[in-house]
Amino acid sequence: MRRLWYGGDYNPEQWDAGVWKEDIALMRQAGVNLVTVGVFSWSSLEPEPGRYEFGWLDEVLDLLHDGGISVDLATPTASPPPWFSRLHPEAMPVTAEGVRLTHGSRDTYCACAPAYRDAAQGIARQLAERYHEHPALAMWHVHNEYGTTCYCSLTGERFREWLRERYGSLERLNEAWTTAFWSQGYADWRDIEPPRKTQYLVNPAQYLDFRRFWSDELLAAYREQKAVLREFSDVPVTTNFVFGGWVPVNHAKWAAEVDVVAIDHYPDQAGIGAEEQTAFGADLARGWAGGKPWLLMEQAAGGVNVGSRWHPKEPGRMARHSLSHVARGSRGALFFQWRASRGGAEMFHPAMVPHAGPDSRMFREITELGSVLPRLAEVAESNVVADVAILWDVECWWAMQGTHLPSSALDYLAAVRSAHRHFWRAGVTVDFAAPDTDLSSYRTVVVPSLYLVSDQAAANLTAYVENGGQLVVGYFSGTVDPDLRVRYPGAFAELLGVRVDEFHPLPIDGEVALASGGRGRVWSEDVRIVSAEVIDRYAGGVLDGKPAITRHEVGAGVAWYLSTDVDDETAGRLLGLPASPVETVRRRSGDTTWTFLLNHGDAEVAVPSEGSELVVGELPLRPGGYAVVRSR
Amino acid sequence: MRRLWYGGDYNPEQWDAGVWKEDIALMRQAGVNLVTVGVFSWSSLEPEPGRYEFGWLDEVLDLLHDGGISVDLATPTASPPPWFSRLHPEAMPVTAEGVRLTHGSRDTYCACAPAYRDAAQGIARQLAERYHEHPALAMWHVHNEYGTTCYCSLTGERFREWLRERYGSLERLNEAWTTAFWSQGYADWRDIEPPRKTQYLVNPAQYLDFRRFWSDELLAAYREQKAVLREFSDVPVTTNFVFGGWVPVNHAKWAAEVDVVAIDHYPDQAGIGAEEQTAFGADLARGWAGGKPWLLMEQAAGGVNVGSRWHPKEPGRMARHSLSHVARGSRGALFFQWRASRGGAEMFHPAMVPHAGPDSRMFREITELGSVLPRLAEVAESNVVADVAILWDVECWWAMQGTHLPSSALDYLAAVRSAHRHFWRAGVTVDFAAPDTDLSSYRTVVVPSLYLVSDQAAANLTAYVENGGQLVVGYFSGTVDPDLRVRYPGAFAELLGVRVDEFHPLPIDGEVALASGGRGRVWSEDVRIVSAEVIDRYAGGVLDGKPAITRHEVGAGVAWYLSTDVDDETAGRLLGLPASPVETVRRRSGDTTWTFLLNHGDAEVAVPSEGSELVVGELPLRPGGYAVVRSR
Amino acid sequence: MRRLWYGGDYNPEQWDAGVWKEDIALMRQAGVNLVTVGVFSWSSLEPEPGRYEFGWLDEVLDLLHDGGISVDLATPTASPPPWFSRLHPEAMPVTAEGVRLTHGSRDTYCACAPAYRDAAQGIARQLAERYHEHPALAMWHVHNEYGTTCYCSLTGERFREWLRERYGSLERLNEAWTTAFWSQGYADWRDIEPPRKTQYLVNPAQYLDFRRFWSDELLAAYREQKAVLREFSDVPVTTNFVFGGWVPVNHAKWAAEVDVVAIDHYPDQAGIGAEEQTAFGADLARGWAGGKPWLLMEQAAGGVNVGSRWHPKEPGRMARHSLSHVARGSRGALFFQWRASRGGAEMFHPAMVPHAGPDSRMFREITELGSVLPRLAEVAESNVVADVAILWDVECWWAMQGTHLPSSALDYLAAVRSAHRHFWRAGVTVDFAAPDTDLSSYRTVVVPSLYLVSDQAAANLTAYVENGGQLVVGYFSGTVDPDLRVRYPGAFAELLGVRVDEFHPLPIDGEVALASGGRGRVWSEDVRIVSAEVIDRYAGGVLDGKPAITRHEVGAGVAWYLSTDVDDETAGRLLGLPASPVETVRRRSGDTTWTFLLNHGDAEVAVPSEGSELVVGELPLRPGGYAVVRSR
Repeated sequence: MRRLWYGGDYNPEQWDAGVWKEDIALMRQAGVNLVTVGVFSWSSLEPEPGRYEFGWLDEVLDLLHDGGISVDLATPTASPPPWFSRLHPEAMPVTAEGVRLTHGSRDTYCACAPAYRDAAQGIARQLAERYHEHPALAMWHVHNEYGTTCYCSLTGERFREWLRERYGSLERLNEAWTTAFWSQGYADWRDIEPPRKTQYLVNPAQYLDFRRFWSDELLAAYREQKAVLREFSDVPVTTNFVFGGWVPVNHAKWAAEVDVVAIDHYPDQAGIGAEEQTAFGADLARGWAGGKPWLLMEQAAGGVNVGSRWHPKEPGRMARHSLSHVARGSRGALFFQWRASRGGAEMFHPAMVPHAGPDSRMFREITELGSVLPRLAEVAESNVVADVAILWDVECWWAMQGTHLPSSALDYLAAVRSAHRHFWRAGVTVDFAAPDTDLSSYRTVVVPSLYLVSDQAAANLTAYVENGGQLVVGYFSGTVDPDLRVRYPGAFAELLGVRVDEFHPLPIDGEVALASGGRGRVWSEDVRIVSAEVIDRYAGGVLDGKPAITRHEVGAGVAWYLSTDVDDETAGRLLGLPASPVETVRRRSGDTTWTFLLNHGDAEVAVPSEGSELVVGELPLRPGGYAVVRSR
Repeated sequence: MRRLWYGGDYNPEQWDAGVWKEDIALMRQAGVNLVTVGVFSWSSLEPEPGRYEFGWLDEVLDLLHDGGISVDLATPTASPPPWFSRLHPEAMPVTAEGVRLTHGSRDTYCACAPAYRDAAQGIARQLAERYHEHPALAMWHVHNEYGTTCYCSLTGERFREWLRERYGSLERLNEAWTTAFWSQGYADWRDIEPPRKTQYLVNPAQYLDFRRFWSDELLAAYREQKAVLREFSDVPVTTNFVFGGWVPVNHAKWAAEVDVVAIDHYPDQAGIGAEEQTAFGADLARGWAGGKPWLLMEQAAGGVNVGSRWHPKEPGRMARHSLSHVARGSRGALFFQWRASRGGAEMFHPAMVPHAGPDSRMFREITELGSVLPRLAEVAESNVVADVAILWDVECWWAMQGTHLPSSALDYLAAVRSAHRHFWRAGVTVDFAAPDTDLSSYRTVVVPSLYLVSDQAAANLTAYVENGGQLVVGYFSGTVDPDLRVRYPGAFAELLGVRVDEFHPLPIDGEVALASGGRGRVWSEDVRIVSAEVIDRYAGGVLDGKPAITRHEVGAGVAWYLSTDVDDETAGRLLGLPASPVETVRRRSGDTTWTFLLNHGDAEVAVPSEGSELVVGELPLRPGGYAVVRSR
Repeated sequence: MRRLWYGGDYNPEQWDAGVWKEDIALMRQAGVNLVTVGVFSWSSLEPEPGRYEFGWLDEVLDLLHDGGISVDLATPTASPPPWFSRLHPEAMPVTAEGVRLTHGSRDTYCACAPAYRDAAQGIARQLAERYHEHPALAMWHVHNEYGTTCYCSLTGERFREWLRERYGSLERLNEAWTTAFWSQGYADWRDIEPPRKTQYLVNPAQYLDFRRFWSDELLAAYREQKAVLREFSDVPVTTNFVFGGWVPVNHAKWAAEVDVVAIDHYPDQAGIGAEEQTAFGADLARGWAGGKPWLLMEQAAGGVNVGSRWHPKEPGRMARHSLSHVARGSRGALFFQWRASRGGAEMFHPAMVPHAGPDSRMFREITELGSVLPRLAEVAESNVVADVAILWDVECWWAMQGTHLPSSALDYLAAVRSAHRHFWRAGVTVDFAAPDTDLSSYRTVVVPSLYLVSDQAAANLTAYVENGGQLVVGYFSGTVDPDLRVRYPGAFAELLGVRVDEFHPLPIDGEVALASGGRGRVWSEDVRIVSAEVIDRYAGGVLDGKPAITRHEVGAGVAWYLSTDVDDETAGRLLGLPASPVETVRRRSGDTTWTFLLNHGDAEVAVPSEGSELVVGELPLRPGGYAVVRSR
């Protein structure tokens, strides 16, 4: 289906039927072809236990269908109604400190509580039975942004079951968790608990396993609902991934269980930072999808939430963000939400139809974008072209979120973002890949701070270099195995031809100078050369004159090591990446190439487009302008 | 009674009878004529359940009476004794996180617990029975600084009752709370709880109603005690209002239930900031009193608590603060407390008699002030002269304390303080008024960030302008109705002759330039002119050239709009308010005018006083000096 | 026994027997002669309730003995095994907020729970029975870093018993706690609770007594274990003291109950700050020991934990820190831990054998230090020479940690560190002494901010001056008695010949100028001269021209008063202490003097050593170098 989806979350239960008709008319005007319905409808669909009210939803779906708009129908399980709390107090979530939460917001339930799991499957079944043949139905949307956590005793039970499955014996668990330290040895499965508030530092392996468990447990909850839907229908099933500082699920693993990878993407910086974050998130989603279709399921129309403030998106920025996602593989551009709420906690969240109504800059931009996307439908099945990969491993991130590292400034996400930025600012598209996948198609592979690494992944990277790859390894990589046990001299010592004997974490916000004139941040190391050559050295400080950046030829390839977090200019010089104001993404299908061009600079740019044809946009590129050209 | 009260909280249970006699003698020396007794005496009066010890209080009241000192007798209900916790564990307050507090400080009780309410009325009855005819009794002081909150299940019950009363039906409540969003629809009253810790953002209307409820619930507790006292006595009844970052009660509403509005006032800035805060608090109290008498019940003698530090009041500052209150209508100047405590949590709280004893600068200043106040008794019944009003609405403040706004920098209290400062620094006295009251006596009415506004209030302001008023409306005003539902284009759009299509919150601590050379902070808006004229424009940024300040003639009046938080100089220029070092307040009674003059500058000021007579102070005004002159 | 101990915590249960053999060999290579074994071994020794596994420990102790290495055998009671939590949920600790902690870290138990106390004595008995005659046994090490606290109901019971013992009657307790304020009077012992989370400020005397109680309660727990060990053995018993921001035990009092005072010392500053902290901690330990032997039981080998970052110790710094401790009286230098852990929460904690293994800078420095210490054995029984004492009183510190002071900038520890620094930077060694001990041997005694002082201590200091001592009293001293009751004009007014009528806390991070050109921080006071002479005055501000530093001749001595926290230069000038880059400590025994010299400067220093003999190190002192010389 060569089509790009356009639309957003539609929560019609907030308005009466008169507004619904205006909604459909405006959707048609804006070019909307898909809306997500029902995400927060549980209390409207089942206002009292066992009493269902489907009439309003029947009417809404019929109206949408009559308007030619498809529906991504959600199970409303992320927000049980208030009565659920009263009937199942044991299913309310408990924090690590032991606080049991109360409803009054959204997402207030324990995913391990049998009562919750049963109720979730029950309401999913009701929806599937009733709507599986509805002609508007294009997609099932299970739940919303799986993520909330819990530390209650029911969670403890499930955690222990998961651990039994993973380790088989307590002997193996004790070894993996290094429980010989601090007298934590377990002799009875019953003694294991989630990492609740304790006296001092939590066992980091227990913490990591709890993160792994929680992702798997939520996945099980998702799969239960998917199985219910599958009993009735072969319509594609998805759930929307959300990404932020605390990411409780392993999206790369979950991707195998969805028919379409869907992401919600809310950058948190204004200006150029938002553009960079947009590219990062879209590339990451494409990496998770690993060839499957993926879709930008939610973004904000009119603003970026910066800290605790909605920064309005300047004219054109909403379109650029949407096109950047499409350029990088998204099968469309959807928003939360269609119409701004009249009240409630997110009444000021931007929407496609703002409070100011259709006679507004925002709705005009929405309508304009809605006219552009259909002309890009031809790219839908093409592939994004990239010959560089950055490794991404969520377990490494989780591991580095434990409180045991030599410096609190170590930040896996920041290191990965930094690597991505080095390419993005040169207008070069990169893929994200898992450490243990086939990397042979890439000219260059970058490995930012891969603290935790398995033997298989380490071997995979070695083979990649031996076969001719260029591998750029970042500081602190290869330090521990998947049990969080130190592996001196580290998984990559031989490959890199160096030994690191001492870590020298830099002062928070401190810097170290490099002989080349560059600067390092966050971290430095006492690197001893075994067989590598030195590319750059520390200048000044206790490491003065010692190697900072090294290069090691191995087989047909080369392995580089960066023992500090280098500044953008130094990285650009090392990697041969001159800065460019134009973000460029290439898509290819057969012998056709589409080039997406987004001008983030302040000046007009004349992009040579000889032999190519303009699909959308305009050339030369005005500041903030975009164009897509087709060539063969 | 043309008299000004002078004195403070007197907690004699901290000392033995020998000290009491010295206290009375020093009070007489200092001119004290009123002391508040018994605020924290519960455990001294009823050391064990049902065993009363009134002997010491009998003696103290007799001594005071013999010394010619009147008594403001407090019910001690703000601090139940330790035994109360043991007998009524269910009456200990619970935080939003579910932590049940323990005694060991003060104010540790749940105001919704029947056991507490009964006990409070019981001890009030004991006091009323025993002392209602005591000749020293001049006033009843119910409780102390009503304010602490609770989220326990008993509170939940009372909250539900209050909601039933307010809304009548769940249908109406669901609409008012916009529960259709996030699946919060209620089908059973039992399901409603206080806004306890929940997974994510609290429903802002639920939060606002809890604030409204809590104020009403505390008022009910106050009224119960008042009714008990009224059974025995017609002596005036009051309770002391306290004002700060979290204000749990609606003072304007409570004012109807007290015979004298009493405030505790503790500025938190040193230097000129404290002077400004003093004027603000006194004007606010006068506004709450709305013509009734009001009284400064507590202030600190020797210091201002700045952050976590007692900054000593410089020579003269204590007198200026006291006189500024009196100038603005207070029927006196009282302090917490008479004698500095020997121990306990507030042992370093300033007092009229400091630890250094009567041979101290502080006591000398106290004595001097005590000799000045009687000469000002003639102003006691006169009115403060003001032709400018600033609107104040505590529900708007509560609404803006919820976590749903487009910017965390939005701060109702700061906006109101800012408006007040613009006048104060020009030496101009203003009143505070409620949005729905008769404003016709005012030349100018200022409306700072009145986010929440009812239809009646909006109509009232429109009528005010049509009848010739000058209305100055601040940014973000009129955005929602009392149910916290968005009202586009806002309650004031027609009156102001503008449309606001987009909010542009400024970066925290950021600024935007104005064409006039001024600066805006906190907030900006994309203002579209409908029929207003443009007074100032944004200069630079995404709103460059767009209207920032507008003016609209409506009927016989004019409505101004300030779409950003303008700096003091710009506001002064707009409002015709040149800065002045002398704070000037006029009081009038019949054809007599009293002018209070406080010199906050560093230079002597020769104030023309032709045809007027010096009542107290000296002229010309020395730096830090004051004078009150009488003229006809 | 003229020997210096060298070694560290050895936790062999983390490795298999193959590593143990390598450990012993490396220990011998490094000169190790004492290791602490068993600190965290409970779950390895008693993996299930009542099932013991001593085989591995037998083997380890035998191996150590065969290697000539002595053992400091620990009872593992700081970390009960996970099964303990399941069997005794009531013995899990509860925070002041009511959160009951879960195991998963270390130290998770309530020291007041009978089940814990019984279990602790039980496992101690098992160890004593089995190993009391083991030839490797040189010392018993009870528990580890006594300190964690609890607010549960079992703690409440013990607290009440302690209070009954201290006060005898509720009348006396009510007076000591000033419960007449805020209605806190107790009429029933059952009503007293630990200072749990309450509505507002905690009673400061209740808080202080809880701190006193907790120290005594932990001491009782220690003594119970010691008594068990004494049943079997006369080997010296110790426990390792730990010192930081929250110090729950009174080390000076505990010192009477240990055979060797042992401290763990972890500075938290890099660079010269760590050197200064080292000297401070070592002098404090010597003061606690009061003539008894003392020992540096733990320090980190390779790094200083600065905030949340391990800053590597530069070459030589580890040796200088160790020698500074030895210079100041330590009977050796031990580390946590021997070998870096493979996993767990402290896997990146520095160790004598780092992850890089023996072929590393760190192990080479460890080995070098191990060769130096035996040559210093001759100093082991000598005395440190000091003619200046600084007073230290942990109860004063605890008192100042309550939330009732006139300024949050008041910081007892900072004031004491400041006084110590004034001497340290001039290379002058000081003792720490308790306020009520014989001070006649000191030329000068410094009294930093001794807020709380008993009558006996005040009399002791007065006698010290009358008999010819030089007493330097810091601001805020003598303000309250041991019940935290204000004692105007303060305990030292007469001795100092001044009256302080008003406190003038400075703005946080603010300063006040002195007429001499110096600066004061934190605090200032309105000082009135009674009979003292003025040495320096405030310059500018509200205290302009008033006395800042005074001097008062009393009897044969002189009492100085510093009413503000003076800068280092001013203090150096006043006390006649020119700054020096060389830290110098003298030890004496009979007519032999050893001088320890540590060069903290950047330049070589030629120290005159006429008539003396170099014991270790080299002369002249290179930057960062050290030497110990012997003379007669």
